[in-house]
Amino acid sequence: MRKGGVVRLEILGLSGFPEVRPKDDLARLVAETGEKNGIGLKSGDIVVVAQKVVSKAEGRLVRLRDVKPSALARVWARRKGTDPRLVEVVFRESKRIVRMSQHVLLTETQHGFVCANAGVDRSNVSGRGCVTCLPENPDRSARRLASGLRGLLNASVAVIITDSFGRPWRLGQTNVAIGVAGLQPLLDLRGTRDTFCHTLHATMLAVGDELAAAAGLAMGKCGGMPVVIIRGYRYRAGNGGARTLIRLAEEDLFR
Amino acid sequence: MRKGGVVRLEILGLSGFPEVRPKDDLARLVAETGEKNGIGLKSGDIVVVAQKVVSKAEGRLVRLRDVKPSALARVWARRKGTDPRLVEVVFRESKRIVRMSQHVLLTETQHGFVCANAGVDRSNVSGRGCVTCLPENPDRSARRLASGLRGLLNASVAVIITDSFGRPWRLGQTNVAIGVAGLQPLLDLRGTRDTFCHTLHATMLAVGDELAAAAGLAMGKCGGMPVVIIRGYRYRAGNGGARTLIRLAEEDLFR
Repeated sequence: MRKGGVVRLEILGLSGFPEVRPKDDLARLVAETGEKNGIGLKSGDIVVVAQKVVSKAEGRLVRLRDVKPSALARVWARRKGTDPRLVEVVFRESKRIVRMSQHVLLTETQHGFVCANAGVDRSNVSGRGCVTCLPENPDRSARRLASGLRGLLNASVAVIITDSFGRPWRLGQTNVAIGVAGLQPLLDLRGTRDTFCHTLHATMLAVGDELAAAAGLAMGKCGGMPVVIIRGYRYRAGNGGARTLIRLAEEDLFR
Repeated sequence: MRKGGVVRLEILGLSGFPEVRPKDDLARLVAETGEKNGIGLKSGDIVVVAQKVVSKAEGRLVRLRDVKPSALARVWARRKGTDPRLVEVVFRESKRIVRMSQHVLLTETQHGFVCANAGVDRSNVSGRGCVTCLPENPDRSARRLASGLRGLLNASVAVIITDSFGRPWRLGQTNVAIGVAGLQPLLDLRGTRDTFCHTLHATMLAVGDELAAAAGLAMGKCGGMPVVIIRGYRYRAGNGGARTLIRLAEEDLFR
């Protein structure tokens, strides 16, 4: 959105999003919460949703008392002073252990994301003794939400599902896109020219992750604001999903 | 900034920022460009500036014809089909080579940042045959700009200097904070409680990088919009600088 020469984006964090239960209709909850906040969703908006509420709606909760930990999970949990059943759930969600160190259990999830504890998390879950896992197919979850919102509001919005991941050389977590619908999360600018007519050689922008990070500023971390609208960003339409942001093994310096 | 229950942030990309030359007064250029865009800077605003314009103002340009490449730089450049003098500048800006692979020359800069080519860059530089290096001390550059703006506008703003870095497991670059003044770039939430009163155990938020990424959405990559204002984000004041975002070697999984 331009006003004068200014590029103007808005990041709008919605308050009062209800506690989500399995089988809840997320599209309806997002539309209603937008309305209560006086923000009618418009075509071109980007709806950014925290992974946790998507996982809850999809029933991706595991009750720890139903989990029987493996021998390795028990050994590791003892060393770290944590719950062996939680470690077992992390193993089940993973297809590869990237690092087991004093600081972190870092794995590659079934989807191909590399993150701590395979995205399994105990925070912001109401049922005591339960943990959440990442959605089974977050791109599909994003498409479903986008399509639900189109049906309810007759508006064509893009959707990003986000979680906060750590990074190897920098401290702190940032929000990244784990599911995307309706926009291209990776902008390939190779071959375009800069303001001085040099060709840009190695420039791919992870706009999906930048949008997730921007939304993260409004979400905070304590769970109260899991839905954020980004308005005014002119995205490129596309359906590659968040999996286009995953580095292939052969290109990855750290496999 | 709240309106009703909504958290509302604005990302404002300023147009018409002039071409910067060594010794230019960045604070004056930022203040003037803000005014021309109808955006008077206010206390609490965050001014995000692309590294390239800071480097140019500080004269961090290297003329390639003045560079005598070492033997290793020549060997590597031949293999990659690139300019050996450019490789030599990368070596000079580095204190450690992290990876030399078919895809990338990844180094640790004198400041401790891990990035491709030590942040040395040929794009968006007007002098043919010149490259830019990262500012010598980007935290100091940020403090200087914040202090200059305070003098000119009587407004207390925070400043972030940003560059786009790649990541090991995810494709595409995102903007990160390489210099920070006036705000805490790393929010330590360990010990606080989530909405269900669980203690959050391992949560540090790299808000400096999330702010840089948000600004990156308005900057684009082709050089036209190197100054972005973020308005409405309630940051924590602090003077740790961007170096608080660097993982210590002993905590880093990849050293």
